[in-house]
Amino acid sequence: MIELLHEALSKAKPYLEKGKPAEYIPALLSANSNHLGIAVATIDGKYFSAGDIDVLFSIQSVSKVFSLSYVLQKFGTEKVREKVGVEPSGNPFYSLVQLEYEAGKPRNPFVNAGAIAITSMIPGEMADEKFLNLKNFITGISGNPVQMIVDVYRSEFDTSHRNRALGHFMKHFGVIDGSVMESVDTYFRQCAIGMTCEQLAQFGVYLANQGVNPKSGNTVLSKEQTTFVNALMSTCGLYDASGEFGIRVGIPAKSGVGGGILAIVPGKMAIATFGPSLDEKGNSIGGIIALEYLSQKLSLSLF
Amino acid sequence: MIELLHEALSKAKPYLEKGKPAEYIPALLSANSNHLGIAVATIDGKYFSAGDIDVLFSIQSVSKVFSLSYVLQKFGTEKVREKVGVEPSGNPFYSLVQLEYEAGKPRNPFVNAGAIAITSMIPGEMADEKFLNLKNFITGISGNPVQMIVDVYRSEFDTSHRNRALGHFMKHFGVIDGSVMESVDTYFRQCAIGMTCEQLAQFGVYLANQGVNPKSGNTVLSKEQTTFVNALMSTCGLYDASGEFGIRVGIPAKSGVGGGILAIVPGKMAIATFGPSLDEKGNSIGGIIALEYLSQKLSLSLF
Amino acid sequence: MIELLHEALSKAKPYLEKGKPAEYIPALLSANSNHLGIAVATIDGKYFSAGDIDVLFSIQSVSKVFSLSYVLQKFGTEKVREKVGVEPSGNPFYSLVQLEYEAGKPRNPFVNAGAIAITSMIPGEMADEKFLNLKNFITGISGNPVQMIVDVYRSEFDTSHRNRALGHFMKHFGVIDGSVMESVDTYFRQCAIGMTCEQLAQFGVYLANQGVNPKSGNTVLSKEQTTFVNALMSTCGLYDASGEFGIRVGIPAKSGVGGGILAIVPGKMAIATFGPSLDEKGNSIGGIIALEYLSQKLSLSLF
Amino acid sequence: MIELLHEALSKAKPYLEKGKPAEYIPALLSANSNHLGIAVATIDGKYFSAGDIDVLFSIQSVSKVFSLSYVLQKFGTEKVREKVGVEPSGNPFYSLVQLEYEAGKPRNPFVNAGAIAITSMIPGEMADEKFLNLKNFITGISGNPVQMIVDVYRSEFDTSHRNRALGHFMKHFGVIDGSVMESVDTYFRQCAIGMTCEQLAQFGVYLANQGVNPKSGNTVLSKEQTTFVNALMSTCGLYDASGEFGIRVGIPAKSGVGGGILAIVPGKMAIATFGPSLDEKGNSIGGIIALEYLSQKLSLSLF
Repeated sequence: MIELLHEALSKAKPYLEKGKPAEYIPALLSANSNHLGIAVATIDGKYFSAGDIDVLFSIQSVSKVFSLSYVLQKFGTEKVREKVGVEPSGNPFYSLVQLEYEAGKPRNPFVNAGAIAITSMIPGEMADEKFLNLKNFITGISGNPVQMIVDVYRSEFDTSHRNRALGHFMKHFGVIDGSVMESVDTYFRQCAIGMTCEQLAQFGVYLANQGVNPKSGNTVLSKEQTTFVNALMSTCGLYDASGEFGIRVGIPAKSGVGGGILAIVPGKMAIATFGPSLDEKGNSIGGIIALEYLSQKLSLSLF
Repeated sequence: MIELLHEALSKAKPYLEKGKPAEYIPALLSANSNHLGIAVATIDGKYFSAGDIDVLFSIQSVSKVFSLSYVLQKFGTEKVREKVGVEPSGNPFYSLVQLEYEAGKPRNPFVNAGAIAITSMIPGEMADEKFLNLKNFITGISGNPVQMIVDVYRSEFDTSHRNRALGHFMKHFGVIDGSVMESVDTYFRQCAIGMTCEQLAQFGVYLANQGVNPKSGNTVLSKEQTTFVNALMSTCGLYDASGEFGIRVGIPAKSGVGGGILAIVPGKMAIATFGPSLDEKGNSIGGIIALEYLSQKLSLSLF
Repeated sequence: MIELLHEALSKAKPYLEKGKPAEYIPALLSANSNHLGIAVATIDGKYFSAGDIDVLFSIQSVSKVFSLSYVLQKFGTEKVREKVGVEPSGNPFYSLVQLEYEAGKPRNPFVNAGAIAITSMIPGEMADEKFLNLKNFITGISGNPVQMIVDVYRSEFDTSHRNRALGHFMKHFGVIDGSVMESVDTYFRQCAIGMTCEQLAQFGVYLANQGVNPKSGNTVLSKEQTTFVNALMSTCGLYDASGEFGIRVGIPAKSGVGGGILAIVPGKMAIATFGPSLDEKGNSIGGIIALEYLSQKLSLSLF
Repeated sequence: MIELLHEALSKAKPYLEKGKPAEYIPALLSANSNHLGIAVATIDGKYFSAGDIDVLFSIQSVSKVFSLSYVLQKFGTEKVREKVGVEPSGNPFYSLVQLEYEAGKPRNPFVNAGAIAITSMIPGEMADEKFLNLKNFITGISGNPVQMIVDVYRSEFDTSHRNRALGHFMKHFGVIDGSVMESVDTYFRQCAIGMTCEQLAQFGVYLANQGVNPKSGNTVLSKEQTTFVNALMSTCGLYDASGEFGIRVGIPAKSGVGGGILAIVPGKMAIATFGPSLDEKGNSIGGIIALEYLSQKLSLSLF
């Protein structure tokens, strides 16, 4: 397996120069475009990794998987579906247009609006209380603590007026219950959570194992809730490139503009990649190629 | 298996009254809402079926799978992707809006615009020649001939100005090469192809078997092309309910407003259902519930 | 003239029951639907009025005329046009959609987004400072002071998340320079400015007189700037009913959901109406009918 | 007056090189960018003109004024308003988007969809019959015959799939009653009507004279219908530059991509300009500047 991971990275390396890190905040722009790492966590508790596996990066939109899992565990699928839809949007992840045409209900939990709606459900009045609850949930998965990267959070907080707009717009339609400011602030914090790609695979492997973390034995989600998350990752996980990813890789995945991708092979393993060089749609170039290679070699595609 | 199929139908029957047949053409409106049938074709050549399996129905949008397969076989994936995208649209299948915002290129081959663009690629000047080629292709899959239901075709031809609008709009942007009228006419014919649900399963099972029809041994598509079709069915196959279907059933599928659904379990089987009572999004109510039941009992979900 | 004004009100009275006051904030909902008043201020300094002319109402969107005039006077047409367009939007006045498609630049100064962009240009760091400057400008027109209606302001401030969303969205695109919160807060205050319809006519008559207030002799705008405002009122002044108003009345006007309308007959007079019973597009039913009557009797239509 | 007209042309000439003729059909592309002409027809029957006044050009969208006048005369305002709205669209004149969101009803008679809907109301089964009726109507205004420019018509007929799309889309929604093909064909013919700018002013002057042609004495429209047309030209006449034109020129006008503009000064005169060098929004550069100059010199602006 290790050898395959190295091959996957070698395959992907030459393409890194075709992309660049996310530009919208300084803390992301300064990432090293040449970084590339991959890690596997299997459902029988084994770990494999290769490349830049010690680099801490902000998981950004991959955090949407964890916040969604948290509110699913806490409130169940039905309550979650009152707040967000489950269909692909056909629009960029940051778009406001669909919200206006559809009475403020986000298309799915992985577009920004949907993620903010999900985050607004996290218990707590203020952002620090909400975020503490989310952190405790994530820590509870495997027992390892996580921290947010303060620089990234500060950058997000100072600049992300588009996300604030999404929050106020949903508040107008009654989709967000509490304070817009605190919900959006919490969202910025969760996006700034730092992980290595080894950690990301380890934290995410419950989705490959019917909701149970294989090491700690903790049940994060029910089998049905796990299917819910994986199915959504399959149709909506890679922003407006989910269809393409389905063709090329064929497994549920969620990407983030920090360069991380968490991919799930149900019944087998979680694979996490990190490579901050992004393509035009905001997905890690190296990560996708490495995953495509692994998918072919190990016949991972579900299709 | 037969018993399971009967259970699936029993489970679904009570829900049929919540829907109704497609209303936009008389030939569909007159369908019997109580009809419900299911058929399975496995990759080792076995057939199972239950319910109303002798009723001929127009396959409508399920035909998009066959026309796509035809042009994939004929011209390859690359040529196809020049004409249509591979992402979910987030809009109704009949929508013109996305076309205007995206220079006339349809989002994917399963929205109406995309299917018409695909149909325009079928060799032939006139509609009858194009349709003959498509029929020959379908017949070639298993050796059994197919016919179009003339009443349905006439109805479509007389009423479907929205599809004509899509055709002219794409012609304006240069997406359609030949005559709009002939392409749209061909599209109406393919939608009017009549099959029983047994036939649909038998004609579709190559998609579960890496592109090869298990009975005839004919190679319809390459393995890679098969993955292409299945992945697209997974993200875009059930109109604007593809996400929901992924959660509840979890396998690639394509539905039609005639009441048919073709579902593919890669490496295992094709399942076809027929039930003309449709939900608000145009999908067969009974078909989806029967598929959901089978998916749970046989653990078919990919997620 | 007075007699004509009374006739206009009599003509309009029976239609008031077909509408209702604005519902989105309590302070407006409680308005008396039967109120109807009209006032004329001519360019030679004469005043005429009839009906409920002593009722103070919040001028709401009519305030957009004054804030636009202020920044035109202060910065000139060119600077204003950098911030906002001059074309009708074809969308509801509160819409975010156009902003997303057009890089955050509002279509014109009279949709909410455009008005907030204009308000953001008013000198001052904080909302109270900005609003003081605007009040001083308005007072300077005729020498009479204006006040905001505190209840209305409080209501707006507590509820209007859609306008906050507009503000943050424009900030994202760099259209708003300073603080979103202070600009939006200022906007809420200007909307809550209270006037009687007599005051409204007197404050607005400079637009009928090439920019000069006939009583005070103060030059509010240049002739060219006055044309700019009047032309915009003509194409964009009555939300998504500007075309209809052009046909029925045929003079530049700006309406507000508080029930006020300020109409300008260039070279002749300003006419202000007040009637809080609104039609579905948010315009005063009684005001429009009264203006239509006057337009016919006095041949005021420009067309 | 003649001197003024020459001055206006001189003022405009240097700007002609900044634009270019319409490119979408060969017959328009070959127009001479340096051509510029202007003609005035006053309500007391006087004619003035300067520049390239003998060049025949296709009136294109200016024809929408005549077809609208025809159906207004024939069926009255109410019937017309059942087919089309009276509000600016905020979208390009060729757009389909608004139609989809608003159930196929065009925003106004001057966007292409609206004009086709109006043309579909012209009596006659086939295009040649419909067009003959329209030609007879136009001829009846002043007694002078008009012809279509065959090359232009052929070009339009061969290429304009977008307009066909609009027609079929409206047919889908029931807005067009008869044959889409014949209505669209008629529309192409009316767009290809050839006039000199002198003719255009003479044919259009009834709009400045309460509906009556001053020379022939024929009543084309009632006073109320004339106001209807003029008001619509004011808010929707110059495509998506109507607001801008209102500011700079300030009178009702309708432009065409053939380079013509018909401008109406109610109670005074019609002014027609011809200059095929177009700006980005499809309006005659020279025509607008010449009209702006005249408007300033003669104080024609209504605002």
